[in-house]
Amino acid sequence: MIGRLNHVAIAVPDLEAAAAQYRTTLGADVGPAQDEPDHGVRVVFITLPNTKIELLYPLNDASPIMGFLAKNPSGGIHHMCYEVDDILAARDRLLADGARVLGDSTPKIGAHGKPVLFLHPKDFNGCLIELEQV
Amino acid sequence: MIGRLNHVAIAVPDLEAAAAQYRTTLGADVGPAQDEPDHGVRVVFITLPNTKIELLYPLNDASPIMGFLAKNPSGGIHHMCYEVDDILAARDRLLADGARVLGDSTPKIGAHGKPVLFLHPKDFNGCLIELEQV
Repeated sequence: MIGRLNHVAIAVPDLEAAAAQYRTTLGADVGPAQDEPDHGVRVVFITLPNTKIELLYPLNDASPIMGFLAKNPSGGIHHMCYEVDDILAARDRLLADGARVLGDSTPKIGAHGKPVLFLHPKDFNGCLIELEQV
Repeated sequence: MIGRLNHVAIAVPDLEAAAAQYRTTLGADVGPAQDEPDHGVRVVFITLPNTKIELLYPLNDASPIMGFLAKNPSGGIHHMCYEVDDILAARDRLLADGARVLGDSTPKIGAHGKPVLFLHPKDFNGCLIELEQV
Protein backbone atom coordinates (compact mmCIF):
# COMPACT_ATOMS: atom_id res chain seq x y z
CA MET A 1 0.00 0.00 0.00
CA ILE A 2 2.53 2.66 0.99
CA GLY A 3 4.85 3.78 -1.76
CA ARG A 4 7.66 6.33 -1.69
CA LEU A 5 8.69 8.30 1.36
CA ASN A 6 7.49 11.69 0.13
CA HIS A 7 9.19 13.75 2.85
CA VAL A 8 10.41 13.97 6.40
CA ALA A 9 9.22 17.11 8.20
CA ILE A 10 11.43 18.72 10.85
CA ALA A 11 10.06 21.40 13.18
CA VAL A 12 12.77 24.00 13.76
CA PRO A 13 13.08 26.85 16.26
CA ASP A 14 14.81 29.19 13.76
CA LEU A 15 13.83 28.68 10.12
CA GLU A 16 16.45 30.97 8.60
CA ALA A 17 19.25 29.38 10.62
CA ALA A 18 18.10 25.86 9.80
CA ALA A 19 17.81 26.64 6.08
CA ALA A 20 21.25 28.25 6.08
CA GLN A 21 22.73 25.24 7.86
CA TYR A 22 21.29 22.79 5.33
CA ARG A 23 22.43 25.00 2.47
CA THR A 24 25.93 25.79 3.70
CA THR A 25 27.11 23.26 6.28
CA LEU A 26 25.28 20.26 4.78
CA GLY A 27 25.49 21.46 1.17
CA ALA A 28 21.93 20.59 0.21
CA ASP A 29 19.55 22.07 -2.37
CA VAL A 30 17.45 24.40 -0.19
CA GLY A 31 14.46 26.32 -1.55
CA PRO A 32 13.02 29.67 -0.43
CA ALA A 33 10.80 30.01 2.63
CA GLN A 34 7.10 30.04 1.82
CA ASP A 35 4.04 30.66 3.97
CA GLU A 36 1.30 28.04 4.12
CA PRO A 37 -1.43 30.02 5.92
CA ASP A 38 -3.97 27.20 5.59
CA HIS A 39 -1.65 25.00 7.64
CA GLY A 40 -0.28 27.61 10.02
CA VAL A 41 3.31 27.02 8.96
CA ARG A 42 6.16 28.68 7.17
CA VAL A 43 8.12 26.00 5.29
CA VAL A 44 11.39 25.48 3.49
CA PHE A 45 11.74 22.51 1.16
CA ILE A 46 15.06 20.75 0.82
CA THR A 47 15.38 18.59 -2.27
CA LEU A 48 17.52 15.49 -1.84
CA PRO A 49 18.17 13.15 -4.80
CA ASN A 50 15.51 10.68 -3.62
CA THR A 51 13.11 12.53 -1.32
CA LYS A 52 12.47 15.87 0.39
CA ILE A 53 13.01 17.36 3.82
CA GLU A 54 10.50 19.98 4.96
CA LEU A 55 11.56 22.46 7.58
CA LEU A 56 8.50 23.66 9.51
CA TYR A 57 8.15 26.84 11.53
CA PRO A 58 4.97 28.21 13.15
CA LEU A 59 3.33 31.00 11.19
CA ASN A 60 1.44 32.25 14.25
CA ASP A 61 0.53 31.31 17.82
CA ALA A 62 -2.31 29.07 16.63
CA SER A 63 0.06 26.96 14.54
CA PRO A 64 -0.05 23.20 15.13
CA ILE A 65 3.76 23.36 15.39
CA MET A 66 3.71 25.62 18.49
CA GLY A 67 3.00 22.81 20.96
CA PHE A 68 5.65 20.59 19.43
CA LEU A 69 8.31 23.29 19.75
CA ALA A 70 7.22 24.05 23.32
CA LYS A 71 7.90 20.40 24.17
CA ASN A 72 10.99 20.20 21.95
CA PRO A 73 12.73 23.59 22.10
CA SER A 74 15.65 22.44 19.92
CA GLY A 75 13.19 21.18 17.30
CA GLY A 76 12.80 17.61 16.12
CA ILE A 77 11.33 15.32 13.51
CA HIS A 78 7.64 16.17 13.43
CA HIS A 79 6.24 13.67 10.92
CA MET A 80 7.04 11.52 7.93
CA CYS A 81 4.90 11.22 4.82
CA TYR A 82 4.30 8.08 2.79
CA GLU A 83 2.71 8.21 -0.65
CA VAL A 84 -0.36 6.15 -1.50
CA ASP A 85 -2.20 5.71 -4.79
CA ASP A 86 -5.70 5.82 -3.34
CA ILE A 87 -6.15 7.61 -0.03
CA LEU A 88 -9.73 6.46 0.54
CA ALA A 89 -8.78 2.81 0.00
CA ALA A 90 -5.78 3.33 2.31
CA ARG A 91 -7.98 4.89 4.99
CA ASP A 92 -10.52 2.07 4.81
CA ARG A 93 -7.82 -0.57 5.13
CA LEU A 94 -6.28 1.22 8.12
CA LEU A 95 -9.61 1.63 9.88
CA ALA A 96 -10.48 -2.02 9.20
CA ASP A 97 -7.18 -3.00 10.86
CA GLY A 98 -8.05 -0.89 13.92
CA ALA A 99 -5.64 1.98 13.29
CA ARG A 100 -6.80 5.46 14.20
CA VAL A 101 -6.91 8.25 11.64
CA LEU A 102 -6.72 11.78 13.09
CA GLY A 103 -9.70 14.11 12.77
CA ASP A 104 -12.89 12.83 11.18
CA SER A 105 -11.06 10.48 8.75
CA THR A 106 -11.89 12.73 5.80
CA PRO A 107 -8.82 13.57 3.69
CA LYS A 108 -7.81 17.22 3.73
CA ILE A 109 -5.86 19.10 1.08
CA GLY A 110 -2.24 19.13 2.26
CA ALA A 111 0.63 21.55 1.81
CA HIS A 112 1.32 20.13 -1.68
CA GLY A 113 -2.29 20.57 -2.83
CA LYS A 114 -3.00 16.83 -2.63
CA PRO A 115 -5.32 14.83 -0.35
CA VAL A 116 -3.69 13.84 2.94
CA LEU A 117 -4.53 12.06 6.17
CA PHE A 118 -2.59 11.79 9.43
CA LEU A 119 -2.44 8.57 11.47
CA HIS A 120 -2.41 8.41 15.25
CA PRO A 121 1.20 8.29 16.54
CA LYS A 122 0.31 5.91 19.37
CA ASP A 123 -0.81 3.35 16.79
CA PHE A 124 2.40 3.71 14.75
CA ASN A 125 5.39 3.40 17.09
CA GLY A 126 5.18 6.99 18.31
CA CYS A 127 5.55 8.38 14.77
CA LEU A 128 3.15 10.89 13.27
CA ILE A 129 2.55 9.49 9.78
CA GLU A 130 1.04 11.50 6.95
CA LEU A 131 -0.38 9.68 3.94
CA GLU A 132 -0.49 11.67 0.71
CA GLN A 133 -2.30 10.58 -2.44
CA VAL A 134 -0.03 11.15 -5.43
CA MET B 1 27.52 17.54 0.40
CA ILE B 2 24.67 15.36 1.62
CA GLY B 3 23.16 13.08 -0.99
CA ARG B 4 20.29 10.61 -0.69
CA LEU B 5 18.32 9.99 2.46
CA ASN B 6 19.60 6.46 3.10
CA HIS B 7 17.09 5.59 5.80
CA VAL B 8 14.89 6.75 8.64
CA ALA B 9 15.30 4.68 11.82
CA ILE B 10 12.34 4.14 14.13
CA ALA B 11 12.82 2.72 17.62
CA VAL B 12 9.90 0.41 18.42
CA PRO B 13 8.70 -1.21 21.66
CA ASP B 14 7.63 -4.46 19.92
CA LEU B 15 9.63 -5.42 16.84
CA GLU B 16 7.41 -8.26 15.68
CA ALA B 17 4.26 -6.18 16.02
CA ALA B 18 5.82 -3.23 14.20
CA ALA B 19 7.11 -5.43 11.36
CA ALA B 20 3.71 -7.12 11.03
CA GLN B 21 1.99 -3.73 10.95
CA TYR B 22 4.22 -2.42 8.16
CA ARG B 23 3.81 -5.68 6.23
CA THR B 24 0.06 -6.11 6.63
CA THR B 25 -1.63 -2.83 7.51
CA LEU B 26 0.72 -0.58 5.54
CA GLY B 27 1.47 -3.15 2.82
CA ALA B 28 5.22 -2.52 2.65
CA ASP B 29 8.14 -4.76 1.67
CA VAL B 30 9.39 -5.86 5.12
CA GLY B 31 12.52 -8.00 5.55
CA PRO B 32 13.37 -10.51 8.29
CA ALA B 33 14.59 -9.45 11.73
CA GLN B 34 18.37 -9.57 12.09
CA ASP B 35 20.63 -9.09 15.09
CA GLU B 36 23.36 -6.49 14.95
CA PRO B 37 25.35 -7.39 18.09
CA ASP B 38 28.05 -4.79 17.39
CA HIS B 39 25.37 -2.09 17.61
CA GLY B 40 23.22 -3.60 20.34
CA VAL B 41 20.12 -3.71 18.17
CA ARG B 42 17.81 -6.13 16.44
CA VAL B 43 16.64 -4.56 13.19
CA VAL B 44 14.06 -5.00 10.48
CA PHE B 45 14.57 -3.25 7.16
CA ILE B 46 11.61 -1.98 5.19
CA THR B 47 12.32 -1.29 1.54
CA LEU B 48 10.36 1.59 0.06
CA PRO B 49 10.71 2.49 -3.63
CA ASN B 50 13.06 5.40 -2.86
CA THR B 51 14.59 4.77 0.58
CA LYS B 52 14.51 2.46 3.60
CA ILE B 53 12.92 2.45 7.02
CA GLU B 54 14.83 0.69 9.78
CA LEU B 55 12.90 -0.59 12.77
CA LEU B 56 15.22 -0.72 15.80
CA TYR B 57 14.77 -2.78 18.94
CA PRO B 58 17.26 -3.19 21.83
CA LEU B 59 19.22 -6.44 21.69
CA ASN B 60 20.08 -6.23 25.40
CA ASP B 61 19.97 -3.87 28.39
CA ALA B 62 23.17 -2.14 27.27
CA SER B 63 21.65 -1.21 23.92
CA PRO B 64 21.81 2.47 22.94
CA ILE B 65 18.09 2.20 22.15
CA MET B 66 17.10 1.39 25.76
CA GLY B 67 17.25 4.97 26.99
CA PHE B 68 15.30 6.24 24.01
CA LEU B 69 12.49 3.75 24.61
CA ALA B 70 12.48 4.56 28.34
CA LYS B 71 11.80 8.19 27.39
CA ASN B 72 9.47 7.29 24.52
CA PRO B 73 7.56 4.15 25.51
CA SER B 74 5.47 4.15 22.31
CA GLY B 75 8.65 4.40 20.23
CA GLY B 76 9.61 7.20 17.89
CA ILE B 77 11.88 8.33 15.11
CA HIS B 78 15.40 7.74 16.42
CA HIS B 79 17.60 9.10 13.64
CA MET B 80 17.82 9.82 9.96
CA CYS B 81 20.77 8.96 7.74
CA TYR B 82 22.12 11.04 4.88
CA GLU B 83 24.61 9.62 2.40
CA VAL B 84 27.93 11.36 1.71
CA ASP B 85 30.65 10.54 -0.79
CA ASP B 86 33.57 11.25 1.51
CA ILE B 87 32.96 10.99 5.21
CA LEU B 88 36.27 12.51 6.28
CA ALA B 89 35.75 15.53 4.07
CA ALA B 90 32.19 15.80 5.42
CA ARG B 91 33.44 15.61 9.01
CA ASP B 92 36.08 18.27 8.44
CA ARG B 93 33.56 20.63 6.86
CA LEU B 94 31.13 20.11 9.76
CA LEU B 95 33.78 20.67 12.40
CA ALA B 96 35.04 23.78 10.58
CA ASP B 97 31.47 25.13 10.69
CA GLY B 98 31.29 24.52 14.45
CA ALA B 99 28.99 21.47 14.39
CA ARG B 100 29.64 18.73 16.91
CA VAL B 101 30.31 15.16 15.83
CA LEU B 102 29.49 12.54 18.46
CA GLY B 103 32.28 10.45 19.99
CA ASP B 104 35.87 11.17 19.00
CA SER B 105 34.95 12.22 15.43
CA THR B 106 36.45 9.04 14.00
CA PRO B 107 34.07 7.22 11.62
CA LYS B 108 32.88 3.83 12.85
CA ILE B 109 31.65 0.92 10.75
CA GLY B 110 27.86 1.14 10.78
CA ALA B 111 25.10 -1.44 10.52
CA HIS B 112 25.52 -1.59 6.72
CA GLY B 113 29.27 -2.22 6.94
CA LYS B 114 30.11 1.30 5.80
CA PRO B 115 31.80 4.22 7.62
CA VAL B 116 29.36 6.34 9.62
CA LEU B 117 29.35 9.34 11.94
CA PHE B 118 26.59 10.77 14.12
CA LEU B 119 26.04 14.52 14.55
CA HIS B 120 24.95 16.20 17.76
CA PRO B 121 21.13 16.60 17.80
CA LYS B 122 21.34 19.97 19.55
CA ASP B 123 23.29 21.34 16.60
CA PHE B 124 20.77 19.99 14.05
CA ASN B 125 17.26 21.02 15.10
CA GLY B 126 16.91 18.25 17.67
CA CYS B 127 17.48 15.52 15.05
CA LEU B 128 20.06 12.79 15.45
CA ILE B 129 21.72 12.69 12.02
CA GLU B 130 23.84 9.81 10.80
CA LEU B 131 26.15 10.33 7.86
CA GLU B 132 27.08 7.22 5.90
CA GLN B 133 29.77 7.05 3.24
CA VAL B 134 28.41 5.18 0.23
